[in-house]
Amino acid sequence: MRILGIDPGLRSTGFGIIEKKANALTYIASGCVKTDAALSLPQRIKTLLDGIGEVVATYQPQQAAVEIIFVNVNPQSTLLLGQARGAAISALVLANLSVAEYTALQVKQAVVGHGKAAKEQVQQMVMRLLNLSGVPSADAADALACAIAHAHGGQGMGALATAGRRVRGGRML
Amino acid sequence: MRILGIDPGLRSTGFGIIEKKANALTYIASGCVKTDAALSLPQRIKTLLDGIGEVVATYQPQQAAVEIIFVNVNPQSTLLLGQARGAAISALVLANLSVAEYTALQVKQAVVGHGKAAKEQVQQMVMRLLNLSGVPSADAADALACAIAHAHGGQGMGALATAGRRVRGGRML
Repeated sequence: MRILGIDPGLRSTGFGIIEKKANALTYIASGCVKTDAALSLPQRIKTLLDGIGEVVATYQPQQAAVEIIFVNVNPQSTLLLGQARGAAISALVLANLSVAEYTALQVKQAVVGHGKAAKEQVQQMVMRLLNLSGVPSADAADALACAIAHAHGGQGMGALATAGRRVRGGRML
Repeated sequence: MRILGIDPGLRSTGFGIIEKKANALTYIASGCVKTDAALSLPQRIKTLLDGIGEVVATYQPQQAAVEIIFVNVNPQSTLLLGQARGAAISALVLANLSVAEYTALQVKQAVVGHGKAAKEQVQQMVMRLLNLSGVPSADAADALACAIAHAHGGQGMGALATAGRRVRGGRML
């Protein structure tokens, strides 16, 4: 089973693709789709849609997992991020992928074992879990971590992980 | 020229289509796409995409205008509304429509002549401007008003309208 993880953002949306066979996870690809801040919002949304569409067409994942974004202190940023996330989910459902949603807490629990892990810890654990030769960029690491959380059934890797687990309705379509 | 106006919302997204010939505006259609609150966010986004896609396929507009949404007092609502708006814009750009954006202020100035008009005034003016036989629903009226604002080149109908005019970058792609 191929899983596409997405870390949505208007400036940059991270993606990571992994393959799950029995309990083994294999790294397939990762990167990010960047948009030009000088363009209009509709044009930037088009860039995200095209970019994610290309990733789906190239790597043919069967399932997708998208990180649930935080409400920002700046309401205007929250609004922009929300629109980027809406576009990312649009690209996925239009490709007929089932879309699961995970909070940052769930993702960190799944890859590090607890929800308060720092960004660097997530990057390190993603590198180890997927046997990567180098540390992935923060965007790509978050997206890969989201895919790993989904591969683990959203349950995390240990007993600690269960504590704060909250699966949103309709995680699996 | 056919213009599709959109008033985005997760629960209900209003749409209105008008035709502009010389300076005459003709009503073509209006309504709203509703989503089931019991479904997951990705499923609701799918409903919005399919619904707007159907409207575009049926009425074949050449241009689209989307209302710029307000930041809500509740950040979680802002986030949900943002995602719905991102999905609506996605549906439009995927249909290769140019997407213009107007604030509620610009829309009210264009149809009523000042930016502090009440919802009922907007509904009444939309009815009069488009020679409708009855008052359109609030959702549909806002969407039609957005289309009217676009037909007027975002300039409003009178001198008063110019005061608060602010056109976002990339209004016309």
